[in-house]
Amino acid sequence: MELEIKKDLTSNWFKMLQDSICQKISEIEKNKVEFKSTIWKRNHKKDEGGGEFKILENGKVFDKVGVNFSKVHGKFPKQFQKNILGAKKNPNFWASGISVVMHMKNPLIPAMHFNTRYICTTQNWFGGGIDVTPSKKDNNEKKEFHKILRNMCNRHNKNYYLKYKKWCDEYFYLPHRKETRGIGGIFFDYKKDNFEKDFKFIRDVGTTFENIFQKIIRKKIKNKWTRKDKEIQYIKRGRYVEFNLLYDRGTKFGLQTGGNVKGILMSLPPLAKWK
Amino acid sequence: MELEIKKDLTSNWFKMLQDSICQKISEIEKNKVEFKSTIWKRNHKKDEGGGEFKILENGKVFDKVGVNFSKVHGKFPKQFQKNILGAKKNPNFWASGISVVMHMKNPLIPAMHFNTRYICTTQNWFGGGIDVTPSKKDNNEKKEFHKILRNMCNRHNKNYYLKYKKWCDEYFYLPHRKETRGIGGIFFDYKKDNFEKDFKFIRDVGTTFENIFQKIIRKKIKNKWTRKDKEIQYIKRGRYVEFNLLYDRGTKFGLQTGGNVKGILMSLPPLAKWK
Repeated sequence: MELEIKKDLTSNWFKMLQDSICQKISEIEKNKVEFKSTIWKRNHKKDEGGGEFKILENGKVFDKVGVNFSKVHGKFPKQFQKNILGAKKNPNFWASGISVVMHMKNPLIPAMHFNTRYICTTQNWFGGGIDVTPSKKDNNEKKEFHKILRNMCNRHNKNYYLKYKKWCDEYFYLPHRKETRGIGGIFFDYKKDNFEKDFKFIRDVGTTFENIFQKIIRKKIKNKWTRKDKEIQYIKRGRYVEFNLLYDRGTKFGLQTGGNVKGILMSLPPLAKWK
Repeated sequence: MELEIKKDLTSNWFKMLQDSICQKISEIEKNKVEFKSTIWKRNHKKDEGGGEFKILENGKVFDKVGVNFSKVHGKFPKQFQKNILGAKKNPNFWASGISVVMHMKNPLIPAMHFNTRYICTTQNWFGGGIDVTPSKKDNNEKKEFHKILRNMCNRHNKNYYLKYKKWCDEYFYLPHRKETRGIGGIFFDYKKDNFEKDFKFIRDVGTTFENIFQKIIRKKIKNKWTRKDKEIQYIKRGRYVEFNLLYDRGTKFGLQTGGNVKGILMSLPPLAKWK
């Protein structure tokens, strides 16, 4: 398959998935709160693509949820080339992806994060993952969440789940706090074995995320929570901010390469506390 | 003068200044809210010094203020040696300092930050600064603040003010936002011309900070503010968090070298918002 066709297939899928996820979120909000959409361009002087991020705030269910789509191309700044697979000698890249971060009003429902991307340098690969950050422990929820991910992974390759779960645990870790960001999930990068199989997996990760967030939210949407639960959530969100600003590679990379700041930082919670 | 005497003189001054600043803050709070003190050791197995940080929260005037004293010694981890003056070939260091961060309840009063330190590797130097972060513009306050700093600097050296003001503007800058953290102040490092003159300057920076924060607070303490002013302050605090976690060298260095996490992150505001 030609590379241009792969780029079209993947970016169209990410765009479609953005619409589909936004629609499901709107349904959960009973269509009473609207997403605000921002369309941005990477470069105003020449065409280097851009994206659209959609943010819904102050809902009945979501405090803040961002659903970000981008499709960009250009040249990596020199100082980053060495860190990027396949870009050591050639700075040209193309990248498309979708990322979602959900900060929930009900503190008994975990924050949820999902991302998939397709990146082309002199090599072409997929990356992404799903992970969940509760502020209140719930072992059943954790088990159920990982079971869905394991089943999904097993549909594609019996080795994926353990490998990607481990990668997730290692990635979403705050060394200064000696704690994980949440209860893990899956995380993968540099996935470039076989485009058709990999893309099938990527689509499955997307639709599985749709199932997961609806399931988790519906299960607890009516559960009563206390002021104290909310305070614990605010502190947990402080940790979320610490992770994203101190360690997250995507955040750092985006900010250092002149990405859209509001789009990149949409992952930050609406309100966080430190004590 | 022997180095050990310099270490005693500087660390005793920082400790005394911590007590003095805490007392002045307590007076502003009419002694109705107490500082909580935490004493920590750098290493529990052998003596590598430690410190004491004092935090006052939920006051009538201060939302949160931290006053941190430390006196530590040890060896720099190998990967940091090359970045530290005088430590390329010898990892041993001794360091003492005081840092203060004030997050005010009244959003018309700026957040204020002060720090001075004495660091010894194979070279010995002072560093520090004062800077102020309003969430509402006030040109008179800015003028007055810089005038006090200029006068103080001029007592020591006619070149200090412009040099250290520029350094401050460059340091407290958020490139991804294309904005400064606040209205500047002074910032200096690697100060090692003459111990006695430098130490005199360092003490003047400390007592000048005491004058500045009392003056700024007293001037506005009774000014009425609105809910909207407070919301703007919360957003500005989000920027403060971004700066400290993304760019601040002290924060990064402290977290990467196993410093006391609560002490290092006491600079974070009690509550921040993003929209």
